[in-house]
Amino acid sequence: MIYLDNSATTNPKPINVINTTNFAMKKFSFNSGRGGYKESVDTSAKIYEVREKTANLVGVESQNVAFTSNCTLALNMAIKGILNYGDHVIISGLEHNAVTRPIEALALKGIITYDIFQYSYDKEVILKNIKNLIKPNTRLIVCTQASNVFGCKMPIEEIGHLAKENEIAFIVDGAQGAGVFEIKQKDANFDVYCSAGHKGLYGPMGVGFMAVKDNLKLNTIIEGGTGSSSLKLEQPDFMPDRFESGTLNNSGIIGLGAGIDFVNKKGINNIYSHEIDIIDYIYDELKDLKNVTLYTPSPRNFDTAPILSFNFKDYSSEKTALMLADKSIAVRAGLHCAPLAHVSFKTENRGTVRISPSVFTTQKHAEYFLNTLKKLA
Amino acid sequence: MIYLDNSATTNPKPINVINTTNFAMKKFSFNSGRGGYKESVDTSAKIYEVREKTANLVGVESQNVAFTSNCTLALNMAIKGILNYGDHVIISGLEHNAVTRPIEALALKGIITYDIFQYSYDKEVILKNIKNLIKPNTRLIVCTQASNVFGCKMPIEEIGHLAKENEIAFIVDGAQGAGVFEIKQKDANFDVYCSAGHKGLYGPMGVGFMAVKDNLKLNTIIEGGTGSSSLKLEQPDFMPDRFESGTLNNSGIIGLGAGIDFVNKKGINNIYSHEIDIIDYIYDELKDLKNVTLYTPSPRNFDTAPILSFNFKDYSSEKTALMLADKSIAVRAGLHCAPLAHVSFKTENRGTVRISPSVFTTQKHAEYFLNTLKKLA
Repeated sequence: MIYLDNSATTNPKPINVINTTNFAMKKFSFNSGRGGYKESVDTSAKIYEVREKTANLVGVESQNVAFTSNCTLALNMAIKGILNYGDHVIISGLEHNAVTRPIEALALKGIITYDIFQYSYDKEVILKNIKNLIKPNTRLIVCTQASNVFGCKMPIEEIGHLAKENEIAFIVDGAQGAGVFEIKQKDANFDVYCSAGHKGLYGPMGVGFMAVKDNLKLNTIIEGGTGSSSLKLEQPDFMPDRFESGTLNNSGIIGLGAGIDFVNKKGINNIYSHEIDIIDYIYDELKDLKNVTLYTPSPRNFDTAPILSFNFKDYSSEKTALMLADKSIAVRAGLHCAPLAHVSFKTENRGTVRISPSVFTTQKHAEYFLNTLKKLA
Repeated sequence: MIYLDNSATTNPKPINVINTTNFAMKKFSFNSGRGGYKESVDTSAKIYEVREKTANLVGVESQNVAFTSNCTLALNMAIKGILNYGDHVIISGLEHNAVTRPIEALALKGIITYDIFQYSYDKEVILKNIKNLIKPNTRLIVCTQASNVFGCKMPIEEIGHLAKENEIAFIVDGAQGAGVFEIKQKDANFDVYCSAGHKGLYGPMGVGFMAVKDNLKLNTIIEGGTGSSSLKLEQPDFMPDRFESGTLNNSGIIGLGAGIDFVNKKGINNIYSHEIDIIDYIYDELKDLKNVTLYTPSPRNFDTAPILSFNFKDYSSEKTALMLADKSIAVRAGLHCAPLAHVSFKTENRGTVRISPSVFTTQKHAEYFLNTLKKLA
């Protein structure tokens, strides 16, 4: 199978990730932070190591990383942790349902109001679009680091600067960004950065994280046992315990640590340049096919994650994907859980076929995909 | 090491669980329910199989099982999914912080009020205690299946009957019950049953579940992409998608399936009787030691999970546990995240030392523990 759906989850997982996760299940299936025996203490230390690696990725203090089961949970915790009654929120026109659905849920309850700023290939226009929406009660901007459908990268640092200037909290959805682009808290000025562990960080499915800036106070949406301050019926107010109730996914987290090692060893920029070369090559070939509709400029000419969306003939995106699946090519079709992005690009009726390579995708895979598509023509 | 902390997480995990989880990571690291290609469809089918096995355990329809990252998340989803402004809640005096902290959080916000019913070794007294607390606005009873500190089993079926009679919703915290005691929705009349996958079900850490009765409508605390109804900004209203936003822990869930297979093959009752024999033996030996304080009747004489709490001399529970840890015995000390239970048994100042065997615990382990404790005397 030629797997081009790495934005959903990277596959295969690196050997060191598979082996480390497996080893962790044998060696570290103990409750961390709850037992005084050596194995529990060792498990806590091992998890702390991964916390440190994750924190280093985005430039926050180790204790300010809370592990979650996925990016969606992290985003819900961050968004609902910041917002209060009467707040106004600004989100981008490229957001995933992991952002829009919690925001919409709060709006439907009458707790918040929100506006959507339009995406543009011009950074200055994006910033102007955001500025135009800022109100006295604007409390939060939420923005994806890069669109999971069209790849478009957002000017995160500039938006972070704008948010800070206006004393507005800033959450970055890094689902498609972590392990793909460098990002540091001091440059991006985010209050919270959320991401998945199983995409660009090559960890196991079932792990995500929320990294917060120092001294940020967030409300909780989940409370429970933390192994700390147990006599208190109130949730602890310190990180990371405040956001890690119940048993952690030890082997998944330790596997994520191996994923981060893998990415650091290869180098984020090397991985990116490998993947963007493939996307670039595919784009160039696709643009010469008259049956193919493309939606963005060439990757060479704009800031983009290694993600490409297209449609074929007048087929639904699902039909094209099924025809490719029949030839053992795995791509994703439809809305990719991001209806706003499709509205922005006027593809909400058909959806798109999405191509997303990983570091394991080769030129030969790209050629096989292109030849197969040409034969379908 | 002699591991007697299986109520935290069972250890070791069965070989078939370790191997299946490892295999799943290689074979099923694909996004289920989102792709049209064979590998994604196969992954969905595999996860559905585990959904079915989990549903069978507790007697609900397969689609009414939602997978979560742990029992705490499931309990938060259930409790906050049922309760609305002005509701009154009744919880037991043996609840874990996974129940008390979310309830307390709602109470602190002024959304609900709650009362705690006292535990008794006499079922009829428990039922009377609950009845005395029922108010016109009582909307929910939450009760643990068995205390994670003292083992005391609750008369779940009788409480379920009482709840149904009074049209009160009923949530069971099955963290210490799943895989230990038989429970079916039709007998227990629960609205929601929450449990962990990594304790009595012998699955990997990082998986829990929420099983709901048919046609129960619950509010959500987490919204996001579900791969379904993606154009709608509102969370889908059908199970399990409504409660499974974002990427699932595929290998963990599939590993849980292997854990359930393991339990079914051994037989829940056989596992229980193995474990309770060990607890019984330890109890009998401990009660003859003048330096040991026990807190419950003999396991032979009351309904109990295979869990036992004690204290040694006038030592803090932590000190005893550390002395045992020094001799390679792993037990848990302190409050076990369940302060209410300690208040009920007047152990909130010292906590207790907890012994919890698994199917892998042997008579030799019990003897080693007892001999070690005797030498400490």
